[in-house]
Amino acid sequence: MKALRKPVYLAAGANTVSMGTGRKEFDPRKTRPGLEHYINEAVRAVLAQVSNADLVDEGVIANFMAARFNRQGNLASLLAAAHPALRYKPMVRVEGACGTGGLGLVTAIKTVLAELADVVLVVGVEVQNTVKAVYGADILAGAGHYASQRKGGHAYFFPAKFSDRAGAYFTRYGGERTRKAMAAWYANAIGNARLNPLAQEYHNTTPDLVKVGMSKPNPESFTEHLNLFDCSKVSDGAAALLVCSEEGLAKLGLGRDAAVQVAGYGQVVDDLVQAPPDLTTLTTSRKAVEGALGQAGIDVSEVGVFEVHDCFTITGILAVEALGLAQPGEGPDLVSAGGIGRGGAYPTNTSGGLIGYGHPTGASGVRMAVDLWKQLVGRAEGFQIPVAKPYGLLISMGGDDRTVVSMALRR
Amino acid sequence: MKALRKPVYLAAGANTVSMGTGRKEFDPRKTRPGLEHYINEAVRAVLAQVSNADLVDEGVIANFMAARFNRQGNLASLLAAAHPALRYKPMVRVEGACGTGGLGLVTAIKTVLAELADVVLVVGVEVQNTVKAVYGADILAGAGHYASQRKGGHAYFFPAKFSDRAGAYFTRYGGERTRKAMAAWYANAIGNARLNPLAQEYHNTTPDLVKVGMSKPNPESFTEHLNLFDCSKVSDGAAALLVCSEEGLAKLGLGRDAAVQVAGYGQVVDDLVQAPPDLTTLTTSRKAVEGALGQAGIDVSEVGVFEVHDCFTITGILAVEALGLAQPGEGPDLVSAGGIGRGGAYPTNTSGGLIGYGHPTGASGVRMAVDLWKQLVGRAEGFQIPVAKPYGLLISMGGDDRTVVSMALRR
Repeated sequence: MKALRKPVYLAAGANTVSMGTGRKEFDPRKTRPGLEHYINEAVRAVLAQVSNADLVDEGVIANFMAARFNRQGNLASLLAAAHPALRYKPMVRVEGACGTGGLGLVTAIKTVLAELADVVLVVGVEVQNTVKAVYGADILAGAGHYASQRKGGHAYFFPAKFSDRAGAYFTRYGGERTRKAMAAWYANAIGNARLNPLAQEYHNTTPDLVKVGMSKPNPESFTEHLNLFDCSKVSDGAAALLVCSEEGLAKLGLGRDAAVQVAGYGQVVDDLVQAPPDLTTLTTSRKAVEGALGQAGIDVSEVGVFEVHDCFTITGILAVEALGLAQPGEGPDLVSAGGIGRGGAYPTNTSGGLIGYGHPTGASGVRMAVDLWKQLVGRAEGFQIPVAKPYGLLISMGGDDRTVVSMALRR
Repeated sequence: MKALRKPVYLAAGANTVSMGTGRKEFDPRKTRPGLEHYINEAVRAVLAQVSNADLVDEGVIANFMAARFNRQGNLASLLAAAHPALRYKPMVRVEGACGTGGLGLVTAIKTVLAELADVVLVVGVEVQNTVKAVYGADILAGAGHYASQRKGGHAYFFPAKFSDRAGAYFTRYGGERTRKAMAAWYANAIGNARLNPLAQEYHNTTPDLVKVGMSKPNPESFTEHLNLFDCSKVSDGAAALLVCSEEGLAKLGLGRDAAVQVAGYGQVVDDLVQAPPDLTTLTTSRKAVEGALGQAGIDVSEVGVFEVHDCFTITGILAVEALGLAQPGEGPDLVSAGGIGRGGAYPTNTSGGLIGYGHPTGASGVRMAVDLWKQLVGRAEGFQIPVAKPYGLLISMGGDDRTVVSMALRR
């Protein structure tokens, strides 16, 4: 794993509120802000942190399904509309299902490494509350191999895919302890979200989170192993940050202490058509994590804070194993024992994660990078933890462990 | 305009047939091949040209609207399914409306410049004949600012946008001579397509092309300045090639004479929400061309073959002016005098272009690069011209002159 050819930094991050059910101000009956609102809010919050917006050389916009949620393509050009300083500059949109945000980060990093730019603006955005949930699920099914997987009777929605993973895991490693760990994952996510004013579950006041997390799934449904609380949110939101060279940081008037360095990343994409080789393992994510750690030249024990793709509680547990924090089958023990908690050995999703903060799909990978940046530079405010080690690590995952970016960031 | 930091080459190009009305084998009543068919065909035709498919380090897939035409996202993962050698490698999908292909080329070039890869596979693909034309036009309207432009009574389809451009051009520079030049553009496109067996208009046998090109548009329609023959095709197709470092070419067993060098490119994106500053000028394309020529350090007079985005005949004329081949208002004279013909000073769209070859939207920019590569290395077969100068130049344009890449290639 070759090191990156020159230093690359992330700085000036900003996330919007993750809007959707759970937020007090969310009213599904009212017309709500659209794609541009979220793009503009995130971009302007980033640009407000730097000396001069004209210093942005290029832009990358990460979005999964605006074509269907918002009937909008050509998002590169919509990004150019977010600020006068962006007009007539190079912009591109990238997509890789729910792993879109990670691809956005990588594209910007490449631009800096290529010496085409010193400052690249990356924005992730998704606005999904434009359609009813059942139509939304059909849209998101485009993250899988739509043509083949819609056949065969079993409704093809992502909850069903991950319910199947949970079922396989229960069978191999024991259902009861895994279910308890899933409830513990939920409780950790909501607990963290309550500290993050931008989180969709910020207003959550459920007294006993573990109890609701233990709710029995409907055995007649197509998600017979998942309950409602196992699922991430349907969200509208955006996240943005700047990817910079050393020269870029200096030009922007940002000190090294305001930035994190990209220590390494792994980008691994598996075949959409074939079934995952093992339902109890995130094989692709594992490879991506190995790539990130290998390029950074570190061991996972040097990482002080994690952001992982918990589209479902079971995915969080599988991610913990993919990170190498627990052996296969032992993820539930680590989670139930509080190992991923704020005071645990491996604080994970301190922002709330996809279940607590929310999951504006194309934005999530960028949102994770912003939240790791916040933790590592000490700007996480209400959800700040004392990060005991120099690195943060993220997993941005698209589809059923198909399109994955993992990235190690160093403060 | 800084030169690229190291040499980058394009090689091993392949285009599929552009399928749709016009092709003898096209039957709209039958189920036709889908997205994967075209991706796989183009990818395998590229890989058949090299010593070892495992040498591909990364992949880029350029697609505009599979989300709506095919209900498919996560195309990076679909690309990984095209060949066993692609599995578990970094892949990304990019989008920028009809300029998507150009963005795909740039993304691969960045990857090589970043020293992350020596060989990057780029595929452009679009399969559009899955819906009736009127729905297709609505889908493609996502290349513009859908939310605002669907309002106001005037149907918002791209033909209407470019009809308005034609009308403005007629008013400023004279309708009759421009209409004649549009018919000449059509005749040149079809004449070239008849030499290219992959072209959608390859089977065209119309005796008097200029006469049909002069057909009077319907003054009651929303495209009162365009007739059917002014329009590019609704197409299914894919295009692919390899973007390589010097080391990559050597590893693949390809000689320099089998490749073209990326001499320079310009990538310029304008604000989607604002109207173009001048309907008679492709302002963004002009800037992109200046960027490409500037980075290459050449004058347009050194270019021996052109591929431009003639989504409509009027756009072709405007492109000729954006290239600097004619002064504003003088494009029609150049075109009518045969200046863009096979034997002219500036041979343009020798493949047939978007009107003759066809317009599989997300693929077109890649298809142009493949056709320039064919001309410059002498592999254009039936449509080969003796290219008198060392450079080829393309314009890949998305939306109404919004997201543009221009690229100069050197044999």
